[in-house]
Amino acid sequence: MGSLTFVGLGLQSENGMTLEGLDVARKAGGAFAEFYTNRMPGLNLEHLEMLIGKKVHLLDRTQLEEDGGRQLIAAAQKGSVVFFVPGDPMIATTHVSLRITLSKNGIESRIIHAASITSAICGATGLQSYKFGKTITIPQDEPLPQSVPDTISDNSKRGLHTLLLLDINASEANQMTIREAAARMTRARPSLQNALAVGAARIGAIDEKVKAAKMRDLPNTEFGNTPHSIVAIGKLHFMEAEALKVLCGAHDEDLRENS
Amino acid sequence: MGSLTFVGLGLQSENGMTLEGLDVARKAGGAFAEFYTNRMPGLNLEHLEMLIGKKVHLLDRTQLEEDGGRQLIAAAQKGSVVFFVPGDPMIATTHVSLRITLSKNGIESRIIHAASITSAICGATGLQSYKFGKTITIPQDEPLPQSVPDTISDNSKRGLHTLLLLDINASEANQMTIREAAARMTRARPSLQNALAVGAARIGAIDEKVKAAKMRDLPNTEFGNTPHSIVAIGKLHFMEAEALKVLCGAHDEDLRENS
Repeated sequence: MGSLTFVGLGLQSENGMTLEGLDVARKAGGAFAEFYTNRMPGLNLEHLEMLIGKKVHLLDRTQLEEDGGRQLIAAAQKGSVVFFVPGDPMIATTHVSLRITLSKNGIESRIIHAASITSAICGATGLQSYKFGKTITIPQDEPLPQSVPDTISDNSKRGLHTLLLLDINASEANQMTIREAAARMTRARPSLQNALAVGAARIGAIDEKVKAAKMRDLPNTEFGNTPHSIVAIGKLHFMEAEALKVLCGAHDEDLRENS
Repeated sequence: MGSLTFVGLGLQSENGMTLEGLDVARKAGGAFAEFYTNRMPGLNLEHLEMLIGKKVHLLDRTQLEEDGGRQLIAAAQKGSVVFFVPGDPMIATTHVSLRITLSKNGIESRIIHAASITSAICGATGLQSYKFGKTITIPQDEPLPQSVPDTISDNSKRGLHTLLLLDINASEANQMTIREAAARMTRARPSLQNALAVGAARIGAIDEKVKAAKMRDLPNTEFGNTPHSIVAIGKLHFMEAEALKVLCGAHDEDLRENS
């Protein structure tokens, strides 16, 4: 009987997998990967294949979603298979559905976890994990759904921060930028212009960039290449305020309303 | 000039560090670690030292908090130093404070992220990341602060799940169990007896265990060794309900009020 192990690749490249993930992938009979649920700009497929000593079969959205991952399930029925996924696996709904199908077919599955932006954002900014409310993704579609500014204000009323994930355009693997997202949000809800936010680019990479500023000023910062994300700030603990100044270049006057 | 790299160890053992973490630690001039902010039952210090080819100096809470990490900062002033931390670094406030001090002293710091229970819980249970509200830690002190049941009911009113982290007793490295935490919560707020919850033990390990049940029934499940955590469930998406049944052994009748 076969098995499938989801192996998280973390934030930037194949070097974000864990030692355990590497070990399991080396021993596996076959390897698959998808790279459409998150952007991994540093990923080098040839290096990944060299590390694990086997070919990696790429699966696209159609094969995994419309086709239900049939090829992957068939391989896992016959032998031990690893499936590489950006970030921490299972953040994407489609992989939960796959895991349920595997279980119903009596195929064992396991997850080897890796870093996710949902926790890495805390380290990168100095914001505290238990101060975050509900996370929301800003979709590419126009107009911006009211649920985006509503989630920010609902969290903010409770003093909580909001992690805003920026959607990727699956067909082109383009991700929305901080500039675009901030502009869309302030257009949809002008009161957000004055909201304190942190733009975060390429978290986990050597050249990661974070900058705290009022939402209207975020587009003035050059964040460089994606992946990008934004945190809308709630009420700041004094240590968080200090971190925003020291680690994220916030100006004192921008922090006043949130302290 | 020196530098300090925080290297996350992930959820279970030294094999939860990333390939990049290993590479940086091998090249570093010195290595430190703390193991008091989270329990890492599978950790083998000798194996870690063998992997990175150098001795790892352990730091305790007193050295890092009361003493402000003076020894670590002095080492980072002189050369390149890695500092191993359980989970994804910087979830603990004390490390944010350390990073601010480093920055004020002109010492470069960087984080190599790893898996955290805050995102791994999604994969382990099939619950969706964007359906979680504010996380809260259940402290060891009696009586249980009202903020614990209040956070659960505030999240639940908005349809959101609550991740409940169980405190560890730093002096003994004992962690509260699911049984103790569920009993304390239902005593403090009897209406929680009927709340749907998931108990999660040793997430990421080969023998991880998850079980969905009413809070009053959680103590009837044998979860085994810590680390333990609990999710109090809000409103379920149909895929989440399916995942709780298939992956977490939930009974249909227990899911009715949350679906």
